[in-house]
Amino acid sequence: MKVQGENYRTVWMQGHTVRMIDQNLLPYQFQIHVCQDHLQTCGAIRNMTVRGAGAIGAAAGFAMAQAFLLAPRIGYQEFIQEAKETIERTRPTARNLFYAVKLVYDAGMQDKNRVIEAANQVADKDAADSNAIGYLGNAILKEGAQVLTHCNAGWLAFVDYGTALSPIYKAFGQGKKIFVYVDETRPRSQGARLTAWELTQAGVPNAIIPDNAAAFLMSLGKINLVITGADRIAINGDTANKIGTLEKAIAAKEFNIPFYIAAPTSTIDPECPDGRGIVIEERDEKEVLWQTGPDRDGVMREIRVSAPGSKAINYAFDITPAKYISGFITEKGIVRPEEVRTLI
Amino acid sequence: MKVQGENYRTVWMQGHTVRMIDQNLLPYQFQIHVCQDHLQTCGAIRNMTVRGAGAIGAAAGFAMAQAFLLAPRIGYQEFIQEAKETIERTRPTARNLFYAVKLVYDAGMQDKNRVIEAANQVADKDAADSNAIGYLGNAILKEGAQVLTHCNAGWLAFVDYGTALSPIYKAFGQGKKIFVYVDETRPRSQGARLTAWELTQAGVPNAIIPDNAAAFLMSLGKINLVITGADRIAINGDTANKIGTLEKAIAAKEFNIPFYIAAPTSTIDPECPDGRGIVIEERDEKEVLWQTGPDRDGVMREIRVSAPGSKAINYAFDITPAKYISGFITEKGIVRPEEVRTLI
Repeated sequence: MKVQGENYRTVWMQGHTVRMIDQNLLPYQFQIHVCQDHLQTCGAIRNMTVRGAGAIGAAAGFAMAQAFLLAPRIGYQEFIQEAKETIERTRPTARNLFYAVKLVYDAGMQDKNRVIEAANQVADKDAADSNAIGYLGNAILKEGAQVLTHCNAGWLAFVDYGTALSPIYKAFGQGKKIFVYVDETRPRSQGARLTAWELTQAGVPNAIIPDNAAAFLMSLGKINLVITGADRIAINGDTANKIGTLEKAIAAKEFNIPFYIAAPTSTIDPECPDGRGIVIEERDEKEVLWQTGPDRDGVMREIRVSAPGSKAINYAFDITPAKYISGFITEKGIVRPEEVRTLI
Repeated sequence: MKVQGENYRTVWMQGHTVRMIDQNLLPYQFQIHVCQDHLQTCGAIRNMTVRGAGAIGAAAGFAMAQAFLLAPRIGYQEFIQEAKETIERTRPTARNLFYAVKLVYDAGMQDKNRVIEAANQVADKDAADSNAIGYLGNAILKEGAQVLTHCNAGWLAFVDYGTALSPIYKAFGQGKKIFVYVDETRPRSQGARLTAWELTQAGVPNAIIPDNAAAFLMSLGKINLVITGADRIAINGDTANKIGTLEKAIAAKEFNIPFYIAAPTSTIDPECPDGRGIVIEERDEKEVLWQTGPDRDGVMREIRVSAPGSKAINYAFDITPAKYISGFITEKGIVRPEEVRTLI
């Protein structure tokens, strides 16, 4: 996608370095973050400099490639094994991460010289899948669609194009009249910061709403479609995604509004029969209790947004059971939850 | 309730002045705000220095009393009429406001010297009702109750004791084991700021959760009761309350968790047959796009928490249809939605 007239992917490799758009600085600053080795790339995944299912996967694949390239001759195997485990521990819920690491690891174990090619394959496939999701998902976006989305499953969450937003970009590009309600998505506000930024950059009409407001807007008839991304999909269609997805899915069902998950089939975990098997990451309570942003002079400030001495519980994801999901928009087609198993 | 060892109400009259705990400064500073005339009191209601259904009602009653006390002899009637309309325009959704203004207005039209007494009656009744709600609501709080509450319907929202939190204070005071999940309640974060502050002051175990998280905690079996307040209750039981209440009510129904509204019967609007008649206040988008709080040095800062140039939609309240509500905890007893009409 274009930023300030230049074409960018969210994450890429240049020599031995991994480079990425710094998503902790967006939407206030556009800056490229450089990681010299796999440990720096792991740090960037952990602190969410790069975030979003597909972008994390690509970054993890690149990190695995870095480990092969920088591994010492003495203790080579141990270095690779330890690097693999370190990368896999960065974000336990992201399915794409394990998929990408395994692919690059397997390639590297056969031939060390193939790791960059393998990692680039992961990234290219992610971009191609997102593009296909856009073309296929466009079919469910009718003229005048009023779409709710949660978190950021736009191009910033992937290598390019995105998932939940990809059909919206395609439909809008065709001239369809579209309006997007963007859930703020506390505690990290990826909706208010990244999705609103992406959509506004692309000229798509949109408004941020507090996470509390979706059900009420549905009751007023202002939302007629929900599309979110996914971090991991079980074989039965149960889906892990950003905390709050379950609540929107339940509300959508209550008001008979179609609820779609847009994700590449690499998000499906063939070893996960249902949602009970998905590990849900708990993150630091500080993300809820404090918030960071620029003041009117553009100086970044961290402020307390809670009572001093209070505690918070901060699950990063939740599990939406398949029964709430109308369909999955994948690069292979749009399927019902009971058909997910046919895609693996 | 006690703050720093002293007994306080949220709002009271002293001579011709209306005094109130400044709720825009809480939980970071505890300070008393003084309003010299009804216009200053209206300003304090509008900018939420005083907020919460009962406290707004009491403040509005006091403002009406101020208007009678300060009305000039020439143009007396016009002054009173204009003051009444100004007060009623401050917060259109709050039922108690209209109730309190009417009571003081009627008293003043009969005898100007009775306005302070009438306004104090409103405040005293609010405190007594909240106290009764606590005693009666205690019955539904079982040992080990894990309660979700939304926004702030604690003593800060009323003259004293509160509504949704009043039964919790009573049960906790009796030695029952209670845990409270506090919805952050964006955009103004009354949960994270005021409810968490109140509960922590009173020693009640609690944790703040992002507004997104309630349904997931319900799915994990961690919540077994929901209690919120109300800003206005229609005769059929449809209830206006802080934006997000509907979403929590739908989730609670989905997981078969009892959902109670705690409110004095003065919140019931006998002229409102159902929720369709309730005007929903839309507030400035700035509340969603920016956020204020102290930095680590205690300096209040306003930061942007959204993409520059983005828009937001900011409904202050939503309507929860009666079908989602298990019961109403009032000062006259706990009733089912279809019994609300018997209380007016």
